[in-house]
Amino acid sequence: MPAYDDNNVFARILRGEIPCHKVYEDDRTLAFLDIMPRTRGHTLVIPKVKATGLADIEPDDLCHLMGVVQKLGPRITEALGADGFMIQQFNGAGAGQTVFHIHFHVIPRWADQPMRPHGVTMEDQEVLREVAEILRPALAR
Amino acid sequence: MPAYDDNNVFARILRGEIPCHKVYEDDRTLAFLDIMPRTRGHTLVIPKVKATGLADIEPDDLCHLMGVVQKLGPRITEALGADGFMIQQFNGAGAGQTVFHIHFHVIPRWADQPMRPHGVTMEDQEVLREVAEILRPALAR
Repeated sequence: MPAYDDNNVFARILRGEIPCHKVYEDDRTLAFLDIMPRTRGHTLVIPKVKATGLADIEPDDLCHLMGVVQKLGPRITEALGADGFMIQQFNGAGAGQTVFHIHFHVIPRWADQPMRPHGVTMEDQEVLREVAEILRPALAR
Repeated sequence: MPAYDDNNVFARILRGEIPCHKVYEDDRTLAFLDIMPRTRGHTLVIPKVKATGLADIEPDDLCHLMGVVQKLGPRITEALGADGFMIQQFNGAGAGQTVFHIHFHVIPRWADQPMRPHGVTMEDQEVLREVAEILRPALAR
């Protein structure tokens, strides 16, 4: 794994230098919509600590992060009327990781809808805005 | 989600009623090879508590489980000479979940090798045995 790069795109989102469609935040975690969603509501959950992947995040930070994933997954699913959700997390370029700040994908699934491929098609900003507006109140409870 | 079924295949593996290619065990967790691996070394990590998915596992049990995933992922990757690894976890039949005992997939990835489809091709038992023999000492350290 490469060393942590302070200028990776998620570090810049955390510093507010790049906008995102935020759907949840607490003192240790940020969640926002993937701009190349595999399904409607595809969300990324990231910690505010500097870690590239599972190998270098502190266990306590990972616990907190998973608690947020556990809280958000069912709520995203319910808010969008999905049939379930999938969690995905990539470690290493050879495994498909493209941003080297650890992130968990929360991907709502509908039984009758295949997923779009990983990281290929950019979503319309207006669609992302609408989805974020549905999710934000559902995740703030 | 359906209620927890004491006769699901992973509950039966935990009770020793069905064999598995075990690669790691502690007092709260069991890890064994997926019999329909998406790549060589595809491992499932499960807790010993009764939970169907992320929505109904206790946070403390999830923390412990993720600590094991965090320990095993890099070691599986290194032991098999993979380029990285992917974590996957499914919630609900509509999301592709087929066994309703929570399980995390740890899938080693090689940059030049696509994954086989999820849950389609049964692996030869002899191949699974060989892979488990490589992984067991690497994960016991």
